[in-house]
Amino acid sequence: MNNKVKIWGLGIGPGDPDLITVKALKILQEVDVIAYPTLDGGESLARSIAKPHLTSNQEEIIISIPMLSDRYPAQGVYDSAAIKISAAVHAGKSVAILCEGDPFFYGSFMYLFVRLSENHLVRVVPGVTSLAACSSALALPLAARNDVISVIPGPLDEKDLEERLLTTNVAAIIKVGRHLGKIKRILRKIGVIDNAHYIERATMDNQHIRLLSEMDGDTAPYFSMIIVRLSGDILEL
Amino acid sequence: MNNKVKIWGLGIGPGDPDLITVKALKILQEVDVIAYPTLDGGESLARSIAKPHLTSNQEEIIISIPMLSDRYPAQGVYDSAAIKISAAVHAGKSVAILCEGDPFFYGSFMYLFVRLSENHLVRVVPGVTSLAACSSALALPLAARNDVISVIPGPLDEKDLEERLLTTNVAAIIKVGRHLGKIKRILRKIGVIDNAHYIERATMDNQHIRLLSEMDGDTAPYFSMIIVRLSGDILEL
Repeated sequence: MNNKVKIWGLGIGPGDPDLITVKALKILQEVDVIAYPTLDGGESLARSIAKPHLTSNQEEIIISIPMLSDRYPAQGVYDSAAIKISAAVHAGKSVAILCEGDPFFYGSFMYLFVRLSENHLVRVVPGVTSLAACSSALALPLAARNDVISVIPGPLDEKDLEERLLTTNVAAIIKVGRHLGKIKRILRKIGVIDNAHYIERATMDNQHIRLLSEMDGDTAPYFSMIIVRLSGDILEL
Repeated sequence: MNNKVKIWGLGIGPGDPDLITVKALKILQEVDVIAYPTLDGGESLARSIAKPHLTSNQEEIIISIPMLSDRYPAQGVYDSAAIKISAAVHAGKSVAILCEGDPFFYGSFMYLFVRLSENHLVRVVPGVTSLAACSSALALPLAARNDVISVIPGPLDEKDLEERLLTTNVAAIIKVGRHLGKIKRILRKIGVIDNAHYIERATMDNQHIRLLSEMDGDTAPYFSMIIVRLSGDILEL
């Protein structure tokens, strides 16, 4: 471990505890303090992924994020978390901030990063993204040769979402949640719903996979993903 | 290790040998045979990433890919590699196919996967992609909230590349190679060249990072990447 670095953003992977990297595992077990988010003080997904690897003598900083569905918490949550982490570093401790998937791939870690990197050396250890986990779990090669992959958030409005889908070859639609009905309507309209695969909790014990065309209802868990291949080289495999 | 699975596509990460996952490491050290690509029979990048973890008694299947710059090798290369891997399985051996980054993220593994999965149970272990490695190495959060990320191959023609860039928030331009001049011209034209970061060999000992605007010349190594933020929520961090 680099001893000059006192704050780490650790990608701990998509869910299966063994999908943590060797590098992140070493750092996780050497730091004095771990910090992680919870929703409204409930169980932390990040901590539960890291749990089999934790040593027993580590301090924990809990970052409690208020649950607001598609909205975002007031930035004060991150101000106060950054102050706690800074205080630990000033007390001579090293801190790992646990991040599901990869820290810089839509993670809330970035809000801590911008605050902490003003005064500290913060290093990021990349992790396996939910996107890689979903394509492996679906046994679905994502892109070949000169295909364009787009990662598209489900909360975009209907017209915008449709335009984004029409200008890519392969799409990963994230943050499906209450946007499932809208997403199905668009994919049916542009004629690709039969190429769309739905997956939730990829690589976890309760992983769930469906063909999108076989799914009823208009809502899904927030942390679910739809992968759809629209055009391009990948369809010729 | 799942004993029914005899063929694994193993994501071994972007370059730093410690960025392999614990899961891939376990499988790598338990299989009887490893298979990996080389360019024209030269050194294999995949094997060099895995090298510190290899046990001494494993057989090796070398898949020699002819060097053709932007073109693609005749599919016969993959036919004969699939035959060799199948033969090893029929002889009672387990085989791990080593894949740089993630197996299904633009990897040539997909050509083996479509052949081998017709007759065998093939499992894929996701890995840390070059995209995650590059954003971590650049200390550059990729996307926030409802940003769209697109992965865009540099070999696309100029008009197509420009259109793809204009319809995304954050772009990772891959396979830069001899397309560097064209990419710089487009990014300058649409006014975002100052937001573009160039990186080659991310997480390796000889990693090289530049601001794109400071780079001379019209070519770069094939395995380099440009990350450019064009619009969206990420610019407000």
